[in-house]
This record gives sequence, C-alpha cells and structure tokens, in this order.
Amino acid sequence: MESLNWMIPVSGLLALIVALIVAKNVASKPVGNEKMQQVANAIHSGAKAFLSAQYKILIAFIIVVFLSLGFGLDNWMTAGCFLVGAGFSVLAGYCGMNVATKANVRTTNAAMESGLSKALSVAFSGGAVMGLCVVGLGLFGSALIYILTGNSNILFGFSLGASSVALFARVGGGVYTKAADVGADLVGKVERDIPEDDPRNPATIADNVGDNVGDVAGMGADLFESYVGSIISAITLGTIFFQKTGAMFPLYIAAIGICASIISTFIVKTSKSPDPRKALNTGTYVAGGLVMIGSIILSKIAFDNYKAAVAIIAGLVVGILIGVITEYFTSESYKPVRKIAQQAQTGSATTIISGLAVGMRSTCLPVLLIAGGILISYYVAGLYGVALAAVGMLSTTGTIVAVDAYGPIADNAGGIAEMSKLPESVRKVTDKLDAVGNTTAAIGKGFAIGSAALTALALLISYAQVVQLTSIDLLQPIVIAGLFVGAMLPFLFSALTMESVSNAAHKMVEEVRRQFREIPGILTGETDPDYKTCVAISTSAALREMIIPGILAIAVPLTVGILFGTVALGGMLCGATVTGVLLAIFMSNSGGAWDNAKKYVEGGVNGGKGSDTHKATIVGDTVGDPFKDTSGPSINILIKLMSVVALVFAPIFVKIGGLLM
Amino acid sequence: MESLNWMIPVSGLLALIVALIVAKNVASKPVGNEKMQQVANAIHSGAKAFLSAQYKILIAFIIVVFLSLGFGLDNWMTAGCFLVGAGFSVLAGYCGMNVATKANVRTTNAAMESGLSKALSVAFSGGAVMGLCVVGLGLFGSALIYILTGNSNILFGFSLGASSVALFARVGGGVYTKAADVGADLVGKVERDIPEDDPRNPATIADNVGDNVGDVAGMGADLFESYVGSIISAITLGTIFFQKTGAMFPLYIAAIGICASIISTFIVKTSKSPDPRKALNTGTYVAGGLVMIGSIILSKIAFDNYKAAVAIIAGLVVGILIGVITEYFTSESYKPVRKIAQQAQTGSATTIISGLAVGMRSTCLPVLLIAGGILISYYVAGLYGVALAAVGMLSTTGTIVAVDAYGPIADNAGGIAEMSKLPESVRKVTDKLDAVGNTTAAIGKGFAIGSAALTALALLISYAQVVQLTSIDLLQPIVIAGLFVGAMLPFLFSALTMESVSNAAHKMVEEVRRQFREIPGILTGETDPDYKTCVAISTSAALREMIIPGILAIAVPLTVGILFGTVALGGMLCGATVTGVLLAIFMSNSGGAWDNAKKYVEGGVNGGKGSDTHKATIVGDTVGDPFKDTSGPSINILIKLMSVVALVFAPIFVKIGGLLM
Repeated sequence: MESLNWMIPVSGLLALIVALIVAKNVASKPVGNEKMQQVANAIHSGAKAFLSAQYKILIAFIIVVFLSLGFGLDNWMTAGCFLVGAGFSVLAGYCGMNVATKANVRTTNAAMESGLSKALSVAFSGGAVMGLCVVGLGLFGSALIYILTGNSNILFGFSLGASSVALFARVGGGVYTKAADVGADLVGKVERDIPEDDPRNPATIADNVGDNVGDVAGMGADLFESYVGSIISAITLGTIFFQKTGAMFPLYIAAIGICASIISTFIVKTSKSPDPRKALNTGTYVAGGLVMIGSIILSKIAFDNYKAAVAIIAGLVVGILIGVITEYFTSESYKPVRKIAQQAQTGSATTIISGLAVGMRSTCLPVLLIAGGILISYYVAGLYGVALAAVGMLSTTGTIVAVDAYGPIADNAGGIAEMSKLPESVRKVTDKLDAVGNTTAAIGKGFAIGSAALTALALLISYAQVVQLTSIDLLQPIVIAGLFVGAMLPFLFSALTMESVSNAAHKMVEEVRRQFREIPGILTGETDPDYKTCVAISTSAALREMIIPGILAIAVPLTVGILFGTVALGGMLCGATVTGVLLAIFMSNSGGAWDNAKKYVEGGVNGGKGSDTHKATIVGDTVGDPFKDTSGPSINILIKLMSVVALVFAPIFVKIGGLLM
Repeated sequence: MESLNWMIPVSGLLALIVALIVAKNVASKPVGNEKMQQVANAIHSGAKAFLSAQYKILIAFIIVVFLSLGFGLDNWMTAGCFLVGAGFSVLAGYCGMNVATKANVRTTNAAMESGLSKALSVAFSGGAVMGLCVVGLGLFGSALIYILTGNSNILFGFSLGASSVALFARVGGGVYTKAADVGADLVGKVERDIPEDDPRNPATIADNVGDNVGDVAGMGADLFESYVGSIISAITLGTIFFQKTGAMFPLYIAAIGICASIISTFIVKTSKSPDPRKALNTGTYVAGGLVMIGSIILSKIAFDNYKAAVAIIAGLVVGILIGVITEYFTSESYKPVRKIAQQAQTGSATTIISGLAVGMRSTCLPVLLIAGGILISYYVAGLYGVALAAVGMLSTTGTIVAVDAYGPIADNAGGIAEMSKLPESVRKVTDKLDAVGNTTAAIGKGFAIGSAALTALALLISYAQVVQLTSIDLLQPIVIAGLFVGAMLPFLFSALTMESVSNAAHKMVEEVRRQFREIPGILTGETDPDYKTCVAISTSAALREMIIPGILAIAVPLTVGILFGTVALGGMLCGATVTGVLLAIFMSNSGGAWDNAKKYVEGGVNGGKGSDTHKATIVGDTVGDPFKDTSGPSINILIKLMSVVALVFAPIFVKIGGLLM
C-alpha cells in the first residue's frame, strides 16, 4: 500500500483545488446594487484591517517562538515545521475570511433575485471554501512533512504553529466580535430602541465584521488546530504501537474524509430542498457515512481486522451525537429554550438563572458520550484507539466547517439587506437562512468542544508516551495538586476573556453614545455614522486583550513542567482538559439557549417583541454573547495549546524538569 | 499518654455544657415588646415546622439506609454508628436553630435598649451555641466510638450519618431560603417597590425563617460533616501509618481546638470593641493561635518531631487565607465588588457578566493555596499529613460556625426591627451588625469549601487505602472516563438545585401576587398578609426538590463502583472533588460579590437606591442568591457524601465491583 502514500497529500491538494474553483464561482456571482456593495466593502475592508493588524503582532510572536524552538530545543526542524504550521493556519483563515466577506453580499443578492435555494447555495459555498482550505492545508502539510521525513516528532512543531495562530484567531476574534455585538446592542437596542443591523448604529459594521472575524476565521483556526492535532497524535501513537502502518492509517482516513467532504459539498450546493436545514444535515450525514464505509475497508486492509474502524466510527458517532444534544439544548423547538423563555416572564434574573441551569445540565450527556467514546476506542485499540477516535470525529471537518461558516455568512447577508434597506421579502429569506445558521453554529460549537476534548486527550497521551511516563497517579499529591491547578486554569482563562469583552464593549458603548450625542443627523438617518472608529476600537481592543490569556496558555505549562516535572504537568493537563470541556459546553450551550430564547420570544411568544419578557431575554442574550462566542470557544484552544506546548518542550522537561522537587 | 484519652470525649462534653450555659444565658435576655415577640414567634414556629416536616422524610431515609447497611454490608456496628452520626447531626442542627431563633429577637431588643456591643454579644452567643454543639457532638461521638471499640472502620458509618443529614439540611435549607428570598424580592422589591423585610410582604416571614434554616442549620450540618469526616480519615490513615499514636493525635488536636474555641467565644462575647468585625476577627485569630501552639507541643510529645504540627498549621493557615481572599473578592471595600457596581451602570447584563468573571477569577488563589497545602502536608507527613491538614483547618470549627451563624441572627434581628416598626436608630445598629455578617458569611462559605475540599480528599485517600488501590492512573482510560463523569456531577447537581430554586420561587411569586391581588388591605397595611401559606410553600418545595439531588449523590458512586470497579470510582471521586471545589468557589464568590455590589450602590454610589444602576445590582443579587446559598454550598455536601459512600460501601465494591469490566 506504500506506493499509494502520495495520494494523501494529493487529496489535500485536491481539496485546495476544489476550494479555488468554488471560490471563483462565488466571486463570479452578481454583487447587487451600489448601496449593497458599499456596505459589503466596509465589512470586507474592516475584516482585512483586523487581519493585517493581527498579522503584525502574530509575526513578532512567531519569530520569538521560532527562535526559542530553534535555540532552546536546538531543533531547527521542529522550528521550521512550526513556521509551516502557523503559515498554513494563517493562509486557511485568510482565504476563508476573504471568500466569506465576498459570499455575504452575493447571498443577499441571490436572496433578492433568485430566492432561498440559490441563496443557500451561495452562502454554503462561501463556508465550503473555508472548510476545504482547513482540511486541505492541514492534511497536505502534515502528510507531506511526515512522508518526506518519516519523523513524527517534528510534526509537533507543525501542531504548535497551528495552535498558536488558533489562539490569536479564537481569543482575538472572540473579543472582537462580542465587543462590537454587545456594544451595538447595549446602546442601539436597549437605549435607543433601534433594530439589529440598523445602518444608523455606528457599531453595526464592526458587528458584521465580527461575525467573520470570530465565527469564520476563529472557528476555522480552532478546527484546523484540532484536525492537525488529532492526526499528529494518531501518527505518534500509531508509530509506537503499530509502526509504519499505525502511522499511515490516520492519514488515509483523513484523505477519505476529504473526499467525503468534497462530495457532500456538492450535494448541499445542488440541493433543491426548500428546508436549508435538511440540505445541510444531508451533507453532514453523507460525509459521515462515507468515512464509516471507508474506515471499515481500510481497517481490514491495514490491520486485517475491524478494530481500528470501530475506534474511528466511535469518534464519528460521538461527534454527531454531541451535535444532536447541543441542538436539543439550544434550539427553540425543544423544552430547555422554551423554559428559559417562560422564566423570562418574571424578569432578567430568572432568565439568567434558568439559562445557567440549562447550560450546566447540558454537560451531562456529552460528557457521558465522551467517556463512552474513550472506553470503547481504548477497548478495541488501546491508547492508539483514543487518538483514532479523535481522527474519526474530525474526519468530516471539511463539511462541519462549511456548515458552520455558512451561519455567519447568512447572518451577514441579513445585515447587508437591512443596512441597504432592501425590501422585507429579502430579509425574510435571509432570516430563514440565518435561523438555521444559529442552530448550526451551536452544533458546530458542540462539535468543536468534543473534538477539542478528544484531541487534547490524544495529545496528552502522546505527551505521556514521549516523556515515557508510566503512570499519572492521582494518589500522588503532586498529581492531585497539578490536577487542581490545571482545573482552575479554564476558570481563570474564562474570567480574563469575559473581562476583556466587558472592557472592550464598554469602550464601544462610549463611542456609540458619543456619536449619537455629537452627530445629531445619525438618528434621523440624514448623516452616516462613523463606522470606522468603531471598527478600530474593536480591532485594537481585541489585540490588546489577547496578550495576557496568550501568555498564560504558554507560560503555565512551561513553568509547571520546569519547576514540578513531567508528572505534575501530566496531572495539570488532565485537570485543564476536564474542566475545560465542562466549562466550554456549559458556556456555549447557555449562550446558545439564551440567544434562541430571545428569538423564540421575538417570534411572538410570551408577549413578543418589545415586551418586558423580550427585554429580559435580551439581557440573557447579552450575557450569553461572551459566554458562547468568546470564553467558551477560547477554552478549546487553551486545552489543546497547553498539551501541544507540553509535547513540544518535552525534551526540556525530561532534561531539567522538576527543579523544585 | 493513653491514660489521658478520656479527656477527649470529655472536652466534647465540655463544649456541650458551655453551649447549654450560653443558651440559657441567651434565653434569659429580655424579648422586647409584644409586636417583636409576635414576629419572632412566627419565625420560630416556621423554622420548627420546617424541621419537623424534614424529620419525617429524614427518618424514612435513615431507616432505609440503616437497614441496607445492616443487611447489605452485614455490619450492624457500622449501621449503628450511622444512626448515632445522623442523630448527633440532627441534634446539633436542632439546638443551634432553636437558640438562633431565640437570639434574633433578643438581639433586636439589645440593640434597642443597650446598643451595639450588647447586641453583638447576644447575636454571637446565639451563633456560639451552634458552633459548640457542632464540635462538641462531633468530637464526643467519634472519640467515644473509637476509644470504646478501637475500630476505625465502623466510624465511616458515623461519618455517613453526618453526611446524610447534611445533604438534607444543606440542599433542603438552601432551596427553602432562596425560594423565599427570591420570591419575596421579585414581587416585593421589583414589582411593588416595598423595602426588604417589610411586614406587608407575605413572604417576609418565610424569608427570615430561611436565614435560620439555610444559613444556621445548613451551614452547621455542612461543617459538622467536614469536622467528623476529617477526624475520621485522619484516624484511619493514622492507624495505617503510625498505629495508635497516629489515630489518637487528630483527636487530641480536635480537643485542643474545642478548648481554643471556648476561650475565643468568651473573648468575643465580652469584647467592648466598637467594631464588631474586629471582635469577631480577634476571636478567630485567638482560636487559630491556640491550636497552633497546642499542635506544636503535641506533635513533639506524640512523634518526637514537629512534622505533624507543620501539616496541622498548613491546613489552619490555608483555611484562614482562603477566608481573607474570599473577603477581598466579596467585600465592598475592594476592587472586584466596586468594578461590578461600576459595570452595573450599563445595565443588568454587564452586571452579570462582570460578577461571573469575578467569581471565576476568584478561584485562582484558593486553588493554589489548597494545592500548596496538599504538597506541604504530604511532604512532611505523607498521606496522613493531608488528612492532618484537614483536621488542622477544621480544628477551629467551633469559632468559625459561631462567627458564621452570627450573621443570619443579626440579619433576622434587622428583619424583626423592620417588621415591628422599631425606630430607625435600632435598625441602624442591626444594619451595622448585619453588614459585618455579610462578610463573615462569605468568609465562612470560603472556609466551608476549603475544608470540604481537604476533607473530601482525605476521605478519598482513606478510600484508596481501604480498598487497597496502589494507584489511580490517569493514563488508564477507565480513570480518565471516571474523571470526566465525576467532574460533570457538580455541574449537573448545581443545575438541579438552581432549577429547584427557580421552581419554588416561581410558586412563591404566584402566591405573593395572589395575596396582593385578593387581599386588598395588605398593601395599605390594614390587613396582615397570610405568612403561613408562604412558609408552607417554601417547606414543601424544599423537601420535594431535595429528592433527586439526594438520590444522585448516593446512587452514582454506588453504580460506578459496582459496574466499573474501585479504580473507576477513584477517578470519579477525584473529578467530582476538583470541579466541585472550583464551582463552589466560583458560585459562592460571584453571589457574595453581587450581594455586596448591591449594598455598595445602596450606600449611595453610582446613583444610589432606586436608580437604574441599583436595579441592575438587584438582578445580580437575585441571580447570586441560589448561586451562593443553594448550589454552591450544596456542592460541598455532594463531594464529601460521595467519598463517604465510597468508603462505607468499599467492602461491596471489592467483592463484586466492576461487573462491566
């Protein structure tokens, strides 16, 4: 089978070629009238402004890490792989966001000219480019490095590159989007009573830029990190337990996943279904089904049994089920969200309490599924099996990202329709697309958390193998102490990112109020507000607020490893992973549930728009914003990044680790 | 030294005798005018009604557990100890609450007739009875059983009895108090704009009963459980590692702690300081100092070195420092609370976000302290040292409970002053006492969590020794799976208890609204509202809502132990302890900070009472109510109870555990 190895990077390339074709196809669609183009250009250039400001900091950061890897570890191969990993992640984010900010206005136009199914096709195509870039670059990079060098250790550098960029994209993007969103809502909706996306709101462009920055680029980088991390740990553990075959198997699975994603992309794009949700679901299930079949065949060929396939399928099924559960807890069609909407009738306090309770309760089943997935995959294929479950879950990443990135594009399309004052009917189409996008976003978040959990665990197991830990024994106080400290980190990290949003939103509120006060023509619609200043506030706040959490994520594992040694670090990583997963599920589902409780009331229930109940749900939604879009998702990065840091710097810990012990 | 062993139970008896004298002394104080007595009687009989309703369920529960212990474990000694433990906990709670509901009105009267320092003395005396009963019964019971039988294993039954009652008292009491509080506030303060404790509010008696039920009886049972649990694990581990000397040492420390608590009680009672906080702090520090000195002497005598003393002192210092940190995060004198009050200017959403962030951030230092305490105590005295640290932390429980129970008594005193329409000047004195009580309550909660953490850990270590686990290895998937599931339980438990408060508060709101609607004389002050129905609603809701969390706490460790075996159960207990501690700190500090942010604004800052900022802080406070007084404290019970269940049923797990493995 070795002679077919070239097919793996080629399938990565294939994804990139398809992405290019789809992108060209999106770009060729008509962009609508002048006003629409104007709004779209403002969003596009706002997004670009954020990216270029971010790249400046990122480049400095990358150089520092590159040099410390080179000199510190004396390993320039790893340092080089780090560069490639970081570069590929940036590239994926750039391409994805570039196309997304083109697809938005073209979706609006399609909604205006051709109706729902064409609009869905354009919006989904925009998302598909991001999805295909993520998996294409991820597999191409990791497979090429491994096939050329045969060295799995230097791949950790590639993974660290992906993780570092993900940190910037997720935390920075998360702060950006919610500073703008909360700021826009607090003054616009609450104080001035003007609707969402109203062109009179100075923060509205920043808000729409934020959707792209946070939900497209941030989510893409997050899943790029998981995708790469899971493949690399499977290669590492595969090499240890099953030599070359064990290392190549996950790469082949990923290649099959890419083909499955390409096929499912075309199924969704050409779907004629009047229900966008059905079309998107079909895509996801087709991709999953194809990978299942492929893994069964491949497992038989590679190992002459079906054990590896069972591990792959376990991961895949757990990922899909977590999505289904997430939908239950965050969709307005089910009890939890409706309960929140009902509790909102007694005011904002009960709205908050019930939303927090829903989020906490929603951790139960996903955690049981993850635990079950770990046990099954271990039972059939040992520690390697756990890594395979992660690869299995992430094999359909191309489709998942596409479906997920579709959401903010549809959201933007609605915003552009509103800002360009297009007829009600257009907004109706985009609203329908957007509503589905909300659910897919919540599902995507559930998937991102589940995959982060398995990936972090797979990385952790790899770490234990690399530093040759025979056990991480909870009866050793150093492990329990490490567990406690690690478990605390996601709480601290969440506090920091939430405060970042608070601070940034506060600045935004002041600026929006200032504009309303000082430029009297804005509220009457005679003068355009100064969108650019708001964009600049979000940009600079996002970049500034990113620094402390970033340092934390890298410095803490380094410090613990050096001062307390590899065992303590192992305990710490376990603690961080376990509470990280719980907090992330809790925060993202509470946020999703509040968001949809608001939408449910806006649909006319319990008093409808403008009622006191509605106001209470707006408070819930505002609290949920940093929960679901900043702190929750940032934790995914934290737990993976810390594991990768531990892996990359393992040689140092082994050499000088445990200074204080 | 063995000939002095009788002094240990005698020191327990001594505490009970002092408690009796103090109680008589409290009862002998004048009770004030007729209106005051009327209000006080309503509170007293409401509290009794709750207790007797609770006892009915409790008795059924106790009989079931007693029989399962006897027949299931075939160990009637353990079953008997269970009965004694449960009985003693009930007795402590009954006496404490009985005196507290007498001390409240006498405090009001002292405030009216003799001023601040006399009022402080009465309120503190009321609390001291609870404190002395807790430690007196705890030490008397455990010491007598151990000295008479020399069997440390049957003591687990005593601990289980304490834990079972604690579950009822904490969860039931927590739901009771917050259903009443939230219900009273939502209609009274928010809808009708009448002040706290206004006699026109039908839920106001229930609210005042709740303070006793939740904050006196609940807190007492919680610390009774920790106190007993820590002593019993230290006896168990002491026997294993240092034979008889190791077993008796913690009992002697506890005896010293009781003497220290009695001395400090008299210091506070006779304090002439104009600042109640100073008096209470002096008491705490004197008690701590005495134990430190005693432990140094005793350690030298028993082990001919100071290692055990270091472990004891480590625990004691960690406990006090956690209190100091808790004060920083929840007192209006410091930045965190003021930041929340500032964020409240932009509405309730930002109030909630910043309060959540404060709570999450506040987990950092306590966890580092706990981790440090574990490492130091282990370093000097091995696993036994960790249990000693717990004993050290809890040695001053008598004083801590006294200081803590003082809070709700002062709070009640204020309520009685308001309801009896006493002059403003009286309310001013009780307000001053109450304000200090708020801080001591927050500190007490911090202490309760820290001690629960160490106790749960000590119980966990005992469990591992009893079932002869050589390791709980995180690299074994069954342990990681157990860790995940365990870590999820506090989230689920919190969700359940928060929803309980929601449901019960909802019923209370409806009843209060109904009374205002149907009995027109209430709002004008012509007719008394129907307090009793509100008391009945709180009572029945508290008892009903307790059932599912209660079953969960007992059934889950049993199920995991039987189906997946002792190792998986070990992992699960670690997971539950670690996230339990974090969630409890987070929730109780967020709640405390919101509460004081409201008080800070009421003091005239950022717009003062009645402003929009004030309204936003009320929302924060209402969300914080179940956080800090129901869910957070209930987690303490959960983590200890699950460890005790594991310990008691260890023989079964060893015999038939791991059916599915």
